[in-house]
Amino acid sequence: MKTVTMQDVAEAAGVSKATVSNAFNRPELLMPALRARVEKAVRDLGYRGPDPRGRMLSSGRMNALGVVLPGAAGISNALENASVRRFLAGAASLCEERGIALSIISGADGSRTCGARSALVDGFVILGAEQAGSLLPVLSRGLPAVVVDHDAGPEVSSVRAEDRAGGRLAARHLLELGHRRLAIVAPLYDDRPSVRHDSVCAERILGERFRYTTSARLSGIADAVHAAGLSMDDVPIIEASGFTREQALARGGLALLFDRAPAATGIICLSGHLGLAVLEEARGRGIDVPAALSVISFGVGAEEEERSGPPLSVARTPAFEKGRAATRIVLEGGPVRHLALPFELAVRRSTARPAPPPLPAA
Amino acid sequence: MKTVTMQDVAEAAGVSKATVSNAFNRPELLMPALRARVEKAVRDLGYRGPDPRGRMLSSGRMNALGVVLPGAAGISNALENASVRRFLAGAASLCEERGIALSIISGADGSRTCGARSALVDGFVILGAEQAGSLLPVLSRGLPAVVVDHDAGPEVSSVRAEDRAGGRLAARHLLELGHRRLAIVAPLYDDRPSVRHDSVCAERILGERFRYTTSARLSGIADAVHAAGLSMDDVPIIEASGFTREQALARGGLALLFDRAPAATGIICLSGHLGLAVLEEARGRGIDVPAALSVISFGVGAEEEERSGPPLSVARTPAFEKGRAATRIVLEGGPVRHLALPFELAVRRSTARPAPPPLPAA
Repeated sequence: MKTVTMQDVAEAAGVSKATVSNAFNRPELLMPALRARVEKAVRDLGYRGPDPRGRMLSSGRMNALGVVLPGAAGISNALENASVRRFLAGAASLCEERGIALSIISGADGSRTCGARSALVDGFVILGAEQAGSLLPVLSRGLPAVVVDHDAGPEVSSVRAEDRAGGRLAARHLLELGHRRLAIVAPLYDDRPSVRHDSVCAERILGERFRYTTSARLSGIADAVHAAGLSMDDVPIIEASGFTREQALARGGLALLFDRAPAATGIICLSGHLGLAVLEEARGRGIDVPAALSVISFGVGAEEEERSGPPLSVARTPAFEKGRAATRIVLEGGPVRHLALPFELAVRRSTARPAPPPLPAA
Repeated sequence: MKTVTMQDVAEAAGVSKATVSNAFNRPELLMPALRARVEKAVRDLGYRGPDPRGRMLSSGRMNALGVVLPGAAGISNALENASVRRFLAGAASLCEERGIALSIISGADGSRTCGARSALVDGFVILGAEQAGSLLPVLSRGLPAVVVDHDAGPEVSSVRAEDRAGGRLAARHLLELGHRRLAIVAPLYDDRPSVRHDSVCAERILGERFRYTTSARLSGIADAVHAAGLSMDDVPIIEASGFTREQALARGGLALLFDRAPAATGIICLSGHLGLAVLEEARGRGIDVPAALSVISFGVGAEEEERSGPPLSVARTPAFEKGRAATRIVLEGGPVRHLALPFELAVRRSTARPAPPPLPAA
């Protein structure tokens, strides 16, 4: 069977080859009637356009970026997390500019690695590397790869935020306002039950229990707490389960924050959805924020953080910027790079001086 | 240069080929020390695993689904829309089960079609087909394709919700409660300024101005309004700009709803984010919902619809189910199908009988 060419379409439609090409590439340039004539000829002849597999094999390029999302929780849950969304938006913004596809690959974890092994992409951005059983199936492809919020050794490019500095920024803000009784709410991104830790020794913070970003943020908080002459043993850490504000509220983790006296006057939330959940739980309990309780959270610059009641003070993590930077490293395919992007403090209405005058520092 | 094989890796690591295979496919089965030994051998020898391009050429399968998102607004905006997210979650759920990648392709519109033309995928699900300059670059690929919420003719598979029936469902709910003065808030998914239409004649509703789903929902509302002996000329339609609740509030479209007397007692919002925005705007104006104003909205089953103040009554669009159904049609590659999925009415707290007793029907 003779292969149909663009010339055949042009002749059948009575137009130039350039017009057929425009119908594919810049259809907005063609008058509707002309476009319809070309489209009819394409359909009648069964013209398929150039086969991208041929182009791919000759150029070696797939025109696609692979983004590996945390596997255990599923893509559905990941999309409901504002931080993941801002990251994807950042990655997508560069993909859109370059005209390439963004291929979402589920799960670097254990049994579901076939997506990464068979993906026809030019490189990988790996979110949730920590939860992966192994990065081998991804990294052995030999394609440019960047891990995000993770350390996979000096030979693998990485992009992260300066989470330890972010932790210092958030804690210092409360300490400088005069707060001395702090508590921390940390995210549990799986189905473990929520739990409260009192008297956490410093080694524990850097230990196995917490994920990379959480551990770094806790270390930064500890820096600021120690610099203020206080002990982390007096700062309870509540791990609250759930991916969204709604899940965090429904699963009761926040009751562990509020149900035990003596209450803290300043709360640091290590994820934006937890900050919003704490505001809502406080409202439900009739606790006035910030008069009776200050809340600062890590945030992602989502509009809901600015429109909450009251607007949430945040250490803004550069989620969008991380997505763009990781994508740029993969697409440029240069030498291994390790980027750490800074936080910004956005002081809004959820933090203030504590109601009782602070005790003089010991 | 000799190609490194799995056998070479097995010998270097002193394990069986099956163990090397497990390190790639089911790493959770291996003891960490054994896995580390295999990973070291893989790195030392530079083993790359099977080349997916070879498999792709022999099997003809790409193991990827292409999802074309509305182009004009960008992936970032699309991800902030709960309906798009629920749709993607539905598509992803099936991709995850089948171990294939979900490739997000920006824009079927005009100048940005190269993503769809070069995407290495097994088929396309096309969202936002209506905004596309042309579907030619996608459909001419000759791959299985499904348009969503759009009619591309009998030869192209389609998945939609029964939007006209959904419109009837929402309007009938308010009419049966006794409301006679209705107003409609419709979404404008672009940067046109918000606008209020009074005395809209029926032809206008089905005309060019509104998108496919909006037009179908309006037709269903008109069915119910006419069946109740009322005229659509008395039902103002406000087109409110913005992709999110926050954008809709910020852009002032809702002022067009509230700033003109005589006020309606029942509002129908054609998108979930608009329903939430109307609740918030009413709260800001001190209007009691549902005592003074009933609000019903199209919704997607997002948790925030249930947790709003008050919880929002919705005609729930089957967004997740549409994503799954469209993906299934593409992956099965069977004959052309046209699916319409039903709405469900979820009556919550934002709708009630109107405060003044309703006038007897004319």
